[in-house]
Amino acid sequence: MIVVMREDARAKSISDVIARVKADGYIAHLSEDKQRTIIGLVGESETPLDDSTYQIMDGVERVDKIKVGYMLASRNFHPDDSLVPLNGSHMGSKKVLVIAGPCSVEGRSEIIEAAHALKEAGATALRGGAFKPRTSPYSFQGFGEKGLQWLAEAREATGLPVVTEVMDPGLVPMVCEYADVLQIGARNMQNFTLLHAAGESQHTILLKRGMSSTIDDLLMAAEYILSHGNRRVMICERGIRTFETATRNTFDLNAIPVLKNRTHLPVLADPSHAVGYREYVPALAKAAVAAGADGLIIEVHPNPEKAISDGRQSITMDDFRTMMAQVRMVAEAVGRTA
Amino acid sequence: MIVVMREDARAKSISDVIARVKADGYIAHLSEDKQRTIIGLVGESETPLDDSTYQIMDGVERVDKIKVGYMLASRNFHPDDSLVPLNGSHMGSKKVLVIAGPCSVEGRSEIIEAAHALKEAGATALRGGAFKPRTSPYSFQGFGEKGLQWLAEAREATGLPVVTEVMDPGLVPMVCEYADVLQIGARNMQNFTLLHAAGESQHTILLKRGMSSTIDDLLMAAEYILSHGNRRVMICERGIRTFETATRNTFDLNAIPVLKNRTHLPVLADPSHAVGYREYVPALAKAAVAAGADGLIIEVHPNPEKAISDGRQSITMDDFRTMMAQVRMVAEAVGRTA
Amino acid sequence: MIVVMREDARAKSISDVIARVKADGYIAHLSEDKQRTIIGLVGESETPLDDSTYQIMDGVERVDKIKVGYMLASRNFHPDDSLVPLNGSHMGSKKVLVIAGPCSVEGRSEIIEAAHALKEAGATALRGGAFKPRTSPYSFQGFGEKGLQWLAEAREATGLPVVTEVMDPGLVPMVCEYADVLQIGARNMQNFTLLHAAGESQHTILLKRGMSSTIDDLLMAAEYILSHGNRRVMICERGIRTFETATRNTFDLNAIPVLKNRTHLPVLADPSHAVGYREYVPALAKAAVAAGADGLIIEVHPNPEKAISDGRQSITMDDFRTMMAQVRMVAEAVGRTA
Amino acid sequence: MIVVMREDARAKSISDVIARVKADGYIAHLSEDKQRTIIGLVGESETPLDDSTYQIMDGVERVDKIKVGYMLASRNFHPDDSLVPLNGSHMGSKKVLVIAGPCSVEGRSEIIEAAHALKEAGATALRGGAFKPRTSPYSFQGFGEKGLQWLAEAREATGLPVVTEVMDPGLVPMVCEYADVLQIGARNMQNFTLLHAAGESQHTILLKRGMSSTIDDLLMAAEYILSHGNRRVMICERGIRTFETATRNTFDLNAIPVLKNRTHLPVLADPSHAVGYREYVPALAKAAVAAGADGLIIEVHPNPEKAISDGRQSITMDDFRTMMAQVRMVAEAVGRTA
Repeated sequence: MIVVMREDARAKSISDVIARVKADGYIAHLSEDKQRTIIGLVGESETPLDDSTYQIMDGVERVDKIKVGYMLASRNFHPDDSLVPLNGSHMGSKKVLVIAGPCSVEGRSEIIEAAHALKEAGATALRGGAFKPRTSPYSFQGFGEKGLQWLAEAREATGLPVVTEVMDPGLVPMVCEYADVLQIGARNMQNFTLLHAAGESQHTILLKRGMSSTIDDLLMAAEYILSHGNRRVMICERGIRTFETATRNTFDLNAIPVLKNRTHLPVLADPSHAVGYREYVPALAKAAVAAGADGLIIEVHPNPEKAISDGRQSITMDDFRTMMAQVRMVAEAVGRTA
Repeated sequence: MIVVMREDARAKSISDVIARVKADGYIAHLSEDKQRTIIGLVGESETPLDDSTYQIMDGVERVDKIKVGYMLASRNFHPDDSLVPLNGSHMGSKKVLVIAGPCSVEGRSEIIEAAHALKEAGATALRGGAFKPRTSPYSFQGFGEKGLQWLAEAREATGLPVVTEVMDPGLVPMVCEYADVLQIGARNMQNFTLLHAAGESQHTILLKRGMSSTIDDLLMAAEYILSHGNRRVMICERGIRTFETATRNTFDLNAIPVLKNRTHLPVLADPSHAVGYREYVPALAKAAVAAGADGLIIEVHPNPEKAISDGRQSITMDDFRTMMAQVRMVAEAVGRTA
Repeated sequence: MIVVMREDARAKSISDVIARVKADGYIAHLSEDKQRTIIGLVGESETPLDDSTYQIMDGVERVDKIKVGYMLASRNFHPDDSLVPLNGSHMGSKKVLVIAGPCSVEGRSEIIEAAHALKEAGATALRGGAFKPRTSPYSFQGFGEKGLQWLAEAREATGLPVVTEVMDPGLVPMVCEYADVLQIGARNMQNFTLLHAAGESQHTILLKRGMSSTIDDLLMAAEYILSHGNRRVMICERGIRTFETATRNTFDLNAIPVLKNRTHLPVLADPSHAVGYREYVPALAKAAVAAGADGLIIEVHPNPEKAISDGRQSITMDDFRTMMAQVRMVAEAVGRTA
Repeated sequence: MIVVMREDARAKSISDVIARVKADGYIAHLSEDKQRTIIGLVGESETPLDDSTYQIMDGVERVDKIKVGYMLASRNFHPDDSLVPLNGSHMGSKKVLVIAGPCSVEGRSEIIEAAHALKEAGATALRGGAFKPRTSPYSFQGFGEKGLQWLAEAREATGLPVVTEVMDPGLVPMVCEYADVLQIGARNMQNFTLLHAAGESQHTILLKRGMSSTIDDLLMAAEYILSHGNRRVMICERGIRTFETATRNTFDLNAIPVLKNRTHLPVLADPSHAVGYREYVPALAKAAVAAGADGLIIEVHPNPEKAISDGRQSITMDDFRTMMAQVRMVAEAVGRTA
């Protein structure tokens, strides 16, 4: 349930509502947008929620009994777009931001060199995996902390913030030391222990949709992070599992406008994982921007044929430069920049 | 198997190859692009195909043992884009063409009025259903031939060609009398009797992807039509069935660039059925064009709330005008027009 | 809407209700089970349905506003199991009946020989395809009418009734001449022209679930046939399309008890298509019977390695004999026979 | 790659092969079945694997280059069924074992009382959740350690071993103190940190299939656990996500015989989650046994209407007793006991 206060509500009226929420055994979350305060009630209590009690309180404009699965993530609760700072810009703003880099960090000089090229081509942040979630225990699992160090060196050399995946809740503090954005991957979208740790870290989080998760499952996973008071959450469509085998996953493009409608959080798209074949990545990157994505995450490798993992879906640096120019044109066609 | 002739191959060499194909018990299909002739072998014969026999014949550049599921639909067999004439333009050309109209034809004056407004807003063709495939036998099934007559009157009044669905192979000749393009709907994509009748009609066909059909299933269905010598075939992505329930179907945007890669046929997108909610249709229309779609098919209704069928996914005439302006900008951003 | 009459309702009261239904512009369907009459209202009328009008009529016990998608197929309308006669037994009775045979009819002597062996092993009916729905136009499409003749000869020789697929509405009368049961395949489950033709034929129909059809879609497809007054309809779960590639389809075993709960029609299972690999067919056949299936349809081929189509999922005659013995034991364990 | 030694191979030959494996930079896993030794090579090395080197060594019968995704889980590597001890019986033996209990542990006396009733009805182990994975952060998350204590008390009172879910790798040691079997739930099937912790614990593990995981994904997840030398792993089919909405998930019954074919690990089925509606659970439990499942896991609640979670899919104690009797009859029909 959310209580929307009137624009002219006094501070006293707001604090009265909050006191009432506590007395009823719920937690009150405040959202103050440009003009008014919205108070969300979350948690479970033995006192059933009664909207009429709140309806008649001083300063209250209306009470909405919204879907209880998520609230902090809901646009009803927070009508304005949330802006998440990234490298001097904001994800969720007019500018479409692009995060790019190799699937795995494969060496110190390689990642630094890649970072320079990506920055020059217009990337806002550098991605690269140090801990790799692999379906088979016998596949390459990443360079671990050494990989994180290389990423941090690449950031020092270029100024590009670092986005990297964390899988182990116990390693969240260590990864926070090196990375600017923690990525929670598709396989861990409902790893609730990890979501809690990500929330507690107060670090910026990039949460990817699970491959069999509905749009609402994704928003409820984001709610786990938000419920710790960590508002710097970005979510990402990366393809779902269907019967189609011509592509690695099925890029659920519908999810972009649906998410923009349901949540105020920035919405990214990962066309590399969504399709799995590099020749189709630029077309889908353009499509994601045309559909309203706030950002992109793209796998780029200097030499995709030799990539340790996911080479088939990584584009070359040259392709990336061409793609960026095209993405900019599409962004402008839909009233944005890139 | 396809036999690619050299650019300088003589007519005699080509006819020798064709004769050999017949002698081997296969059917020879010819594709003559700007520079060379490609001969495709289809059908079944007791003589196993032996590429080396053809390899050494005069004028032959190379022999490709391509996937046998479809060949006439394959870009290997016909490298250039196929152009399908529509209202003075061509589907498959630089210009993105838009087919628009109500789900069902609901009355004579309504459809004529709608056609005028759509034409003014930039639509290339008029769609409308006279025979409706409905999951329940108790739902409205369309006005039948009367609906076709109204569509024909709307064409006379506006010059817009008519696109309408046919479900009964026995009614193909009648629908051909009224319509310029026969639509084969998702539920009938593997109705092989209907595909044969559509092929024999030599009418322009708009074939929609079945809701659980793979991309290759769709191309094999197109092959059924093409195998009757009817080359005026357009194919259309319209969403597939997945676990996601926030939208009516899942718009498989990956299919657009994959289809453009595998086939020379024009590729359309139907965002109305792909998502099922009108508020998301314009964003997805733009995305489809950004991804490389040659055309769009959009449900537009003067008063969606009162539509007999599919009102929830129909946009208003005003929304259509706005969408067309946006689609034009995106088309230009990817080097096309609309 | 259905009107349930009291057990002691007089004929006059029943005819009064029927007259009222007609006056309201609807069609009245009667179901007379052992003890009472149930009257179903179907169709569309300008008079909105008003249950209170019927509630107060003489002899009426209650009025149920049931789901309108299907009614004749619903167990609410027809609480008792429907029994469909087959070879002296009834599909839907205590005895689990097995339909078996090759995917395609491949020759006269082959099918007659197979029929003898199948009969001896306990099959109730013979299946075999004369018209084959094939994804590619270049695959073997069946022997057509010649195949039907061979099937009819096999019936004469053995007494086994013949089950065979029809795809073309125009060929329904011809197929009826040869076959005892018309099969409508998965790809044609929503071929409404064919469903109407099947209904009109008044022949026994075996309707298979489409590979992306929900359980309710299947029941609405059955309703198309039933609405022609043809009550001899059997429905069949045969696997749906999912992301799993280890098997040809995913056998939706849930559908068996759900269908038995929602409809009075006999429910069969086709484990051959549902899994696609012969080594798993017997386990799944037993499972289907344990879950409550009324019948099975099994692909059996004297020499699966040499089958023209679907050899990978056909079991041998020896395997069939073993499977029948096992199926009988499971049937008895759940209070049935086989 | 696996090296299969001859039945009469001397210990010296075996140790030579193992030494060679180490010299090549791989890890050697030994499987000694009744008659022969099989040596599996896992891990990654700079020395490419060369089967011919091993082929010619003394005592080697043959070398199989099997799929590298999993090996310890593969039946090729371990042809005999693995037996996992449970309450004096073995999961994977002729006897079908049933694990039963409420979704969540809801109170001390409730769980003890339930355990008594379940034991009497024939359950082999007690299930109950103390830590609940919930899609929304605002849903009941379980009683935590208090719930574990109640479970342990129920075990003391009845002798039934305890099966309970663990989600946090950091809590594995604590859960091991109370529980006999650690359950890894569907949402955590690819939580690799948790899989490693489960492997290290050397505790018995019940690994459930993820809702969008393929059969091979499941076996590779099991391999993560097995690779720590923990061989007491049971796997469980619990339904996958598809387009069908009539049921909670789609019970992939095909997976039972396919898994029995590919792995030596015991295979369980969870019909409660697979269908989500209690009225269908007994039919599906019988089907799973008929298809070859080694065990069942069933949600039972003394008063399902009042269950804190998953009440809709929990059967009553009376239903459980009836179901057990039926399951026993089906087990006997397929040559087993229960």
